Formats: sequence, C-alpha cells, structure tokens
Amino acid sequence: MSIRVYLDWNATTPLRAQARAAMLAAYDLIGNPSSVHAEGREARRLVEEARAMLAIAVGALPRNVIFTSAGTEANGLALLPGLRGPTGGPVERLLVSAIEHASVLAGGRFPADKIGQIRVTHSGVIDLEDLRDQLGGGPPALASIMAANNETGALQPVAEAARIVHEAGGLLHVDAIQALGKIPFDIKTVGADLATFSAHKIGGPKGVGALAVAEGLAGLEPVLRGGGQELNRRAGTENVAGIAGFGAAVKVALQALPEDAKRMATLRNHLENGLRAVAGATVFADDVERLPNTVLFTAPGLKAETAVIGFDLAGVAVSSGSACSSGKVQPSHVLSAMGYDPIAAQGAVRLSLGWSTELEEINRALEAWRKLGNNLLKG
Amino acid sequence: MSIRVYLDWNATTPLRAQARAAMLAAYDLIGNPSSVHAEGREARRLVEEARAMLAIAVGALPRNVIFTSAGTEANGLALLPGLRGPTGGPVERLLVSAIEHASVLAGGRFPADKIGQIRVTHSGVIDLEDLRDQLGGGPPALASIMAANNETGALQPVAEAARIVHEAGGLLHVDAIQALGKIPFDIKTVGADLATFSAHKIGGPKGVGALAVAEGLAGLEPVLRGGGQELNRRAGTENVAGIAGFGAAVKVALQALPEDAKRMATLRNHLENGLRAVAGATVFADDVERLPNTVLFTAPGLKAETAVIGFDLAGVAVSSGSACSSGKVQPSHVLSAMGYDPIAAQGAVRLSLGWSTELEEINRALEAWRKLGNNLLKG
Repeated sequence: MSIRVYLDWNATTPLRAQARAAMLAAYDLIGNPSSVHAEGREARRLVEEARAMLAIAVGALPRNVIFTSAGTEANGLALLPGLRGPTGGPVERLLVSAIEHASVLAGGRFPADKIGQIRVTHSGVIDLEDLRDQLGGGPPALASIMAANNETGALQPVAEAARIVHEAGGLLHVDAIQALGKIPFDIKTVGADLATFSAHKIGGPKGVGALAVAEGLAGLEPVLRGGGQELNRRAGTENVAGIAGFGAAVKVALQALPEDAKRMATLRNHLENGLRAVAGATVFADDVERLPNTVLFTAPGLKAETAVIGFDLAGVAVSSGSACSSGKVQPSHVLSAMGYDPIAAQGAVRLSLGWSTELEEINRALEAWRKLGNNLLKG
Repeated sequence: MSIRVYLDWNATTPLRAQARAAMLAAYDLIGNPSSVHAEGREARRLVEEARAMLAIAVGALPRNVIFTSAGTEANGLALLPGLRGPTGGPVERLLVSAIEHASVLAGGRFPADKIGQIRVTHSGVIDLEDLRDQLGGGPPALASIMAANNETGALQPVAEAARIVHEAGGLLHVDAIQALGKIPFDIKTVGADLATFSAHKIGGPKGVGALAVAEGLAGLEPVLRGGGQELNRRAGTENVAGIAGFGAAVKVALQALPEDAKRMATLRNHLENGLRAVAGATVFADDVERLPNTVLFTAPGLKAETAVIGFDLAGVAVSSGSACSSGKVQPSHVLSAMGYDPIAAQGAVRLSLGWSTELEEINRALEAWRKLGNNLLKG
C-alpha cells in the first residue's frame, strides 16, 4: 500500500480560479455543440478552443484530439487492435509496461492472450532491452508506456521507446497523464502515435480526459457509439463545462510550467532531504529522473497505516492505495514490478506537491514525519 | 430533417441556478471520491447524495445506479448479451424499436446479426403485436424501448411492453432520457430491468448520464475498465461537479414536475393550436399521449431550411437534425419508421418548450410561424 499526501491543492490558485470561471461560463451556455443555432455554435466554440489549447500544448493537430470522460476512457479508446500509422501496424498485440495504470493494464480492446508485459528496472524505469526482445519475432505490436509513473514519479524513456517500437514496425501509446503540465511533453518530439491526458491531474475538473493521435494514425474505432460527435470517434453529448475547464487549466499550467517545475523541484528536494534525515528513510527511484512533484518514500519498520494517521493528525490529507482502486487496499503493483517484496511495499508513502504548495506546508509535513520517524526508532 | 426550437431555456431558472451552485461547490472540493482522506470523503458524499437523489426519483436502489459520461455511454453500458434478471435471460439478442436514439440503434455490445427492429405505428408508437411476434420462437431477448420519443414526444407503452417481454423470458431496457422530469417515471412501476437518463435534458450539465438497474439484475460488465469505481461497473475518476449538478437538477425538476408538466402542456396546446391555424399545419403524433413540451409539426410545401431562417430572424433558436448527429443533415429515421416519405419528413419542424418558457415566447414563435406560413400559401 502506498500513501499520497496532498500537501496543498486548493481552489484559490490562479489555475483553478481560471478553470472554474471557464467551467461556469460554459455551463451558462445552453446550446448543444452539435446544434447549428447561435447557442449551439457558442458551445461548439468553447469546445474547439479547449481542443486547440490542448493540441498546441502537446504538439498535435486539433482534429487529432478527442475529448473523453477521463483518462481511463482515453486509455481504453487508445488500446485497439488494427491501429496503423504511416510507418507501422496494423498492430495485432499489446505490450504494456508492468507499472502502467490499471486502465492500461486492463488492455483496452485487446484480448487477454494478446497482451504482454514489459519489465522495469529496480529504479522503476522500463527495461528497453526487454521491450526490444518482446517486439522481435512477432506481429506488429502496440506498446503502451507511461511518460511518468504515478507512484514513484520516475520518467520513462518514451522517445527512445518510440524509436525502438517504430523500427520493429509497431506503434507507441504514451499515457502522459502524470506528465502534462509538470514536464514538457510533445507527441511529435517523443514520436508517440497516441497519447492520453486527464484534466484533474493539472488542477482542472474531474471527469474529463483526452486522446491525442499523430497525424496519419488510422484504424481508430469508437468505444462509445451513437451520434457523430468528435468526428465519429466518440459519441455522446460533450461535457462542455468540463472541457472548457480543461482548456483553461492547460493554458495556465503550460504557461507556468518552466517556473512551477523549478519551484516544485526545489521544494521536493527540501522535502526529500528532510525525510531522509529521520529514521533511515529512503526515497524510491531517486537515482533516476522524476517528476518535480512526486515523492515515494519508506523507512525500516514504517507501516503506511501509521503514516496515514500521523499525517492526518498534522492536518495533511493522506490517501491510501491508488485513488483509482476505490478502497481496495493492496500492495503497489509498481513496487512489486520494481522487485520490492510485498512487506516493503506496505511501508511506502507517497507525497504529491501541488502548484500552490508553500515551504511552510512542506515543513509541516516534515514535522509530522519527524514525530512518526522518531517513534519508529523508539519502537 | 427535423428542426428543434429552443423557445427558452435560460440559465436563470431556479433549476439551473441550483444545479450551477451544486456544480461549483463540487468543483471546489479537491478530493478524489476514491480517496479515504477528508477531502476524498467529502467528494464521495456529494456523488452519493446525487446517486440517492436519482435513485429516489426513478424508483431504484442507490447501489443500482451507475453514473456515466452521458446518455450515450449509459445506453452502451445497458445493451449487453448475457444480462439476466430474477425472471428472465440470459439474453442472447436485442430488439430495438425503430425510433430509438442513435446510441441505442448502435446496439451496444450485441453483434449486428443479433439485433432486430420493432415496428412503430403511423402515430409513432411501438407496435406491441410486432414485439410479441419477434419475442416468440427465439432465445431470450433484451428489448430496448424509449419511454418517450425525442422527435415527436410520443409516449411509449413501456409498462405493457415490460409484461410482454417478461412473459417471453426476456428483459426490458427503457431509454428514459426524454421522460425524466417531464412525466412520472419509475422503473418498478414500469417493470423495467434497466433504464437510462441524462442530466442535460432536465437542465443539468452536459456530459453526465446514468444507468439504473432493477434489483437482482446480473451479468452487467463495464465498458470502461481500470479502477474499481461505481462498484466495478464503470472505471474512471468521477465527474464530481457534473454528477453533483445532475443530482441538484433531479431534485428541483422532480419537485416541480406536476405543476411544470401542467403548465408546459397548456402552453404546448396553445402553441399547437396557433400552428394549426396557419397554412394547413399538422402536428405529428397528436392522436397519442405525448410529452408536455415537444411539438413536431409540418405544413404542405414547408421546407425545414426555410423554417430555420424564419424562426432565427424572429430570435428563436433553431436546430436542424438531431443534435446528436452533429451536422449530418438527413431525413428523420423516426418519421421514416412512422411511414412518412422522405420529402414529407424534410418539412418537419420541432419545437421544445423549456421549464421557464413563457406565453410571450410562444406567441413570438407563433408570430414567426404566421409570417412563414402565409408566405407558403402565397408561394
């Protein structure tokens, strides 16, 4: 079980204030974006503005961006047998890294016997040799590798993976949900054929996601069928308010990216140094490049349950397990894939910095940790 | 092509104001409903309140209500081979009425060769004899019949259909998207095994829907897979703001239902009488029970395109085609199923009253119609 601490992520940040205003303005529009009257056209305009914003942010053409109801739906839409690109496919099998999100591990529309897993190293980075081996000697594959892991924050060599996958005649899907707004991510620079995003991971509304595909990708079929929305790739009346909020959040997050990332990394380093100073704490994946806002740590004898209570008493919100697994407390599949035994994995605690996190909040978390850690040493 | 007129549906109605406030309050919560800390629990509470509200409104148990990203996704989730109820199934084929929404006609997860269509009468009501005939002599079927048609407003005999379907060992899905908040709808009274709903049809946010199932329904499998949200029936982080807005809209709409329905029906009758007084106009399905807010009419020689312009000049927002078919101008499949030829169907104009529609707005629409109709007679 890993634990996540929201040090601060409040509604008064400029990002959330702007996303909130955009959502409200969109909600106050009555029109359906598929209607041709003035009200409909105005709703359509908001959706298309948000689409253009995300497209610019990730290096896609607006027509290649499809809004969905969340990252989960976007991942399910992306993972499909038969996809083909200008140089690869049609793909007949799926290779997922062992540290992907549950919605990628579920495999989309690939049958279970066509899904393979790619190993990761002890530092939580995908093993490119294993990728190369598994691609060889089989039909074209779609590989799905996340840009950054949600538990450890470890960045993955997605650009190198893209070259390897393309050389083998396959395609690459990148789950960039954790990367968007935290590190530069551009599908053309990476060479991704498909990439997925989620609004609430950058402070936008929950329940909005997107899939961006490279120009020339063919064979995409909708998961949700009915009307012709999203250029026949995703039926259903659009979540106009949510999409507008996503667009506004992308705009603010991307403008602020270089400065925010630097600021978060400085605070993150301060947090990690403080953690390490007590009870022999160690930080997972700290020998590789990571997101500027994610810390997964442990200490000998630490129980995650104890940490939950300790941080909660200090006023720091703590979550157990992956938030996507709704209440199911189970060992982290990420730490298992990295070779840690289940007992070690049960002592792993995750802290995530938000855009508005201040030094004072880091110090509050550290103070809570010192109390916890010192009790560990006594006990 | 049919045309819809939004006479008025503005953001200042009490319903939309309350839904708007609920959405904002929900957006300002940072927590993920799947997280166990205080922020997460608060978000969870809002989602569960909305679920309870919808459950009470439609006669379902809260645990049998699944939130989705729209009516389209809810319909796609509902239409699944293998579903079984306390007295029927497992279903092996699907029977849809010929006047269903595109997302039902798409057939969900049934293969194309397992989908049959049920005829409707010239008045736009499902032919129960044809339903009975098609149910007989085959494996158990899931029938999908809407509570009220979106183009004509014609109410469908869903309770009688439920009895016929159950006698034949099948199950009934009711698309109640047009019915919710406009006529009483309760899945127990109807005897529906599954029913689908959409928030924006009652003035709530776009991009939120729900599926309610009868107690004892088994065999439901998620369309979106990954995390364990919605009791493992629909993965993906919840659209908390949208769901909260849906719950608030349901509450207000249901409280106001009897009075609003009476008021809308009175206005609708005034509108229809005024339409019929000019250019030989006739109202489709006016010999059967209809929704209190929907009018589909035509007149000899009327072109829908002309009507779009005429109403637009009079300040009445007009939509061509079904809003779910995004720009594709095509003859109405509903009027075709009712036996009208494509040319007649191209002159059909739809007007929908909103909750806040006033007599003055009806009169403005009628004035526009008189000008249009008189020109028709001259021409």
